[in-house]
Amino acid sequence: MNSKSFAIKGDICYSISKTELLTYENRYLICIDGLSVGVFESVPEKYSTLEVFDYSGKLVIPGLIDLHIHAAQFSFRGLGMDNELMEWLNSYAFPEESRFSDIEYAKAAYTQFAEVMKYSATTRACIFASVHAPATEILMDLMEKTGLQTFVGKVNMDRNCPDYIVEDTDKSAADTQDWVASCINRYKNTKPIITPRFIPTCTDRLMQRLRGIQEKYGLPLQSHISESPAEIEFVERLCPNAEFYGDAYDSFKLFGNDVPTIMAHCVYSGEKELARIKQNGVFIAHCPQSNANLASGIAPVRSFLDMDLRCGLGSDVAGCTTESIFRAMSDAIQMSKIRWRLYDNKLKPLKFEEAFYLGTRGGGDFFGKVGSFETGYELDAIIINDEPPKHYGKMTLKDRLERFAHLSIGREPTHKFVSGTQIF
Amino acid sequence: MNSKSFAIKGDICYSISKTELLTYENRYLICIDGLSVGVFESVPEKYSTLEVFDYSGKLVIPGLIDLHIHAAQFSFRGLGMDNELMEWLNSYAFPEESRFSDIEYAKAAYTQFAEVMKYSATTRACIFASVHAPATEILMDLMEKTGLQTFVGKVNMDRNCPDYIVEDTDKSAADTQDWVASCINRYKNTKPIITPRFIPTCTDRLMQRLRGIQEKYGLPLQSHISESPAEIEFVERLCPNAEFYGDAYDSFKLFGNDVPTIMAHCVYSGEKELARIKQNGVFIAHCPQSNANLASGIAPVRSFLDMDLRCGLGSDVAGCTTESIFRAMSDAIQMSKIRWRLYDNKLKPLKFEEAFYLGTRGGGDFFGKVGSFETGYELDAIIINDEPPKHYGKMTLKDRLERFAHLSIGREPTHKFVSGTQIF
Repeated sequence: MNSKSFAIKGDICYSISKTELLTYENRYLICIDGLSVGVFESVPEKYSTLEVFDYSGKLVIPGLIDLHIHAAQFSFRGLGMDNELMEWLNSYAFPEESRFSDIEYAKAAYTQFAEVMKYSATTRACIFASVHAPATEILMDLMEKTGLQTFVGKVNMDRNCPDYIVEDTDKSAADTQDWVASCINRYKNTKPIITPRFIPTCTDRLMQRLRGIQEKYGLPLQSHISESPAEIEFVERLCPNAEFYGDAYDSFKLFGNDVPTIMAHCVYSGEKELARIKQNGVFIAHCPQSNANLASGIAPVRSFLDMDLRCGLGSDVAGCTTESIFRAMSDAIQMSKIRWRLYDNKLKPLKFEEAFYLGTRGGGDFFGKVGSFETGYELDAIIINDEPPKHYGKMTLKDRLERFAHLSIGREPTHKFVSGTQIF
Repeated sequence: MNSKSFAIKGDICYSISKTELLTYENRYLICIDGLSVGVFESVPEKYSTLEVFDYSGKLVIPGLIDLHIHAAQFSFRGLGMDNELMEWLNSYAFPEESRFSDIEYAKAAYTQFAEVMKYSATTRACIFASVHAPATEILMDLMEKTGLQTFVGKVNMDRNCPDYIVEDTDKSAADTQDWVASCINRYKNTKPIITPRFIPTCTDRLMQRLRGIQEKYGLPLQSHISESPAEIEFVERLCPNAEFYGDAYDSFKLFGNDVPTIMAHCVYSGEKELARIKQNGVFIAHCPQSNANLASGIAPVRSFLDMDLRCGLGSDVAGCTTESIFRAMSDAIQMSKIRWRLYDNKLKPLKFEEAFYLGTRGGGDFFGKVGSFETGYELDAIIINDEPPKHYGKMTLKDRLERFAHLSIGREPTHKFVSGTQIF
């Protein structure tokens, strides 16, 4: 028995499928060597020597998974939220990201980001940095110290963005190669991920170079796809030979298959694109608040679930104002209702169980067996003091969980474990 | 000079029109006898003996106005948010509201509500209680103690709701008469408001009786209108002689003119209904989060502004999960973008200045000269420690205000004044 072996007592909830949420009051979750052994009414005899963390009366749930967040945009959360996408990128996102050429600025900004992430409900995240490799390493140093498990990407872009932030193609590739070589074996919790911003800002030659680096090191990839109508039209003009947006990524062999891939948004992915996403095993990061804030639209998340696509939630800070994946669950439900009402009443709104699945196990799949407490899953857990109103009387555990998800902003977990290691 | 005369020093923001937000760094807001005298670079000589509250570096803004909130639904915020309207009413709202027949339950639940409202950013609110007059008086007692200025309504409903909560017509009217007589002169800050739930749950005879009580005491009125398609069809069947939903209220003389009236929602109000709303001076309570959560739709708030209708924001707890009118501002902008994208690209999304206006001066107009710091306005003010990130550098005051509005959940004002009286 080591420090990654223990029992947690509390009110335990986790997903075993898209629609099935298990809830157990006053039970024991057993963790051995960082992996869940399961949930028991009492501590089994063979585990009787384990330390028991007693969180009686509190919610014990898998850590939340953020498949898409921009660390370099964290400082201006909440600004320009009445702008549309291109206006917002040019007025806020690009100018702010350019500041990360300054190491001191990067340290200050990323320190705040890492601190917020550490104490949030999120245990794993896929993170965009900026184009600057040195600042990206600073971010990785800071994220490593949080104990969260993350993929962090130096962003690549060599066209269609302002002069003050555009990269030279060769330098972008060389910087990426050097950055990967420098960081790939440096950390325990923090790994590099290839991060072309998206097709509009990456030349074919850059994409080919990134594929080379990806192959050499066997790296995963994250990018954006089919977020807004104007962007999609632009990609059609830039890639006349591509059958659809995702086909452009696929033509560079940067769209799933041997490359673990996350694509954010898929608001307007058509049948063919979704079929390719399924065929190639691409993960979708559904980012409902950002899609609303930037006037992009509402992604058909019901279709993603019906088609059994791999899908999780992304906060997409600063398109979204908060890193909270609870808020993303709440927004995913809310936006699915608006979509149903205004746009397509054939796609039923999400149920809470489905939103919770997306924010835990759905996204967790990108990290392996993560996001549930089933036997063999890595034990990421957060402990929540949800304080249901006493006068209301007994609430079911499912109601308590749903309530907290919707009311959680500003209320952090009291304890957090990542892969069996206690963070706080 | 009395205790309602003082100066506040800080970073001051307020609306002077739908589109004009004034911002002043490091200035003095002068309050004499509870009314704003204006904002000055230094304290004018004639006011030199005033006490100065020094909130340097903090935001000083008008208190927020909530034109529509259900106190009796506060306890189950966040539950059933994946239900649609009728399912939610029958599973959550009606069962919970029925519990307010129990005085002890009402005390416990309303105590929590009043406490949250007191420390929120809201200084004035129009509140629905339940059908129970004794519980409504308890709520009024509690709200009076908060120092907030509120209108509180005992709800009326005598048809089309479950047996366990439906009222007998005569008893509903008699209870309302007795309640109004009992409370109308009892409080300084808290006033009764006639509150038929909405046409579907109120017979013609009840509406006529309520008009009688309204006339006798000169009371204002609050209700719901044109929230969801099924409700509107139902009203068409119930009121075959009404030209439109609002015409049904108007037929009872309970739709503006001599009756200060707030109608929540107007998601589907047609041209004729909006014209009548304008003609009669009815206030619209725009409740964007609730309209999304209950799958109602998105109200055309841009049209309300273009038509110069009287309009403010409502939280509509528990259709909305939070009492925060900052969140309502954020949601109003967000939903206006989704509406523009998915439904009607002729109605431009809201700008921040417009959302801020709606949440302060727009709603404040219902209470008189309230919701701004112009000379002669009642001085409702909240003080906010917004803590912009230091590394980011200087933010404009408008940016700080916008940022806080979007990030504010879980962060309360540090100080609050209502009509010149300090609450905390």
